Amino acid sequence: MTTRLVAGLEPPYYTAVFTSIRPDAPEGYAETSARMRELVADVPGFLGHESARTPGGIGITVAYFRDLEALDAWRLDAEHQAAKRHGRQHWYESYSVHIGKVERSYGFDKG
Amino acid sequence: MTTRLVAGLEPPYYTAVFTSIRPDAPEGYAETSARMRELVADVPGFLGHESARTPGGIGITVAYFRDLEALDAWRLDAEHQAAKRHGRQHWYESYSVHIGKVERSYGFDKG
Repeated sequence: MTTRLVAGLEPPYYTAVFTSIRPDAPEGYAETSARMRELVADVPGFLGHESARTPGGIGITVAYFRDLEALDAWRLDAEHQAAKRHGRQHWYESYSVHIGKVERSYGFDKG
Repeated sequence: MTTRLVAGLEPPYYTAVFTSIRPDAPEGYAETSARMRELVADVPGFLGHESARTPGGIGITVAYFRDLEALDAWRLDAEHQAAKRHGRQHWYESYSVHIGKVERSYGFDKG
């Protein structure tokens, strides 16, 4: 579970916003999800990710990448692609992916 | 609560990714949040939004805008700015905002 925000990134960078609707805990999901977090951490240019999911609602994951090359390396990773196929067949009712180039960001921390 | 994904948007458009850490249900939050959803819906060029929050974890809201003018109109809205000030003083431990220009998006729907 994400409990800390990804912070301090210097633009430009990319956000991959993944929004989804699926059952709360489908079979095999947790293991695959953990494996994907492990894999993506090895992609050069991967900067971090955050996930949130409202019980009974939707899930949103945001992954941060330095450039499109990093993002495409992850998108085209064979194990990741197999997981996505499996997810479409077995887990997701629907999902959307929005790839954005970030030129502006800011944050707040109570400190 | 978001239960349907924003879908079918044609690039280019903008995503405002808002990630936050705060107590689960601070005083006054629900009312202000509902008022902000009402207000933003009137901003020309606002295309929709999604929210997810893991209990005990983080929250992520993604708002979609047609262009930077729409996004800035919302950012500079006086009532919205007052709500953000109140949020920094009373609700949020930390938050981040990432403004991205989306040139690529895709989706899946089981249908």
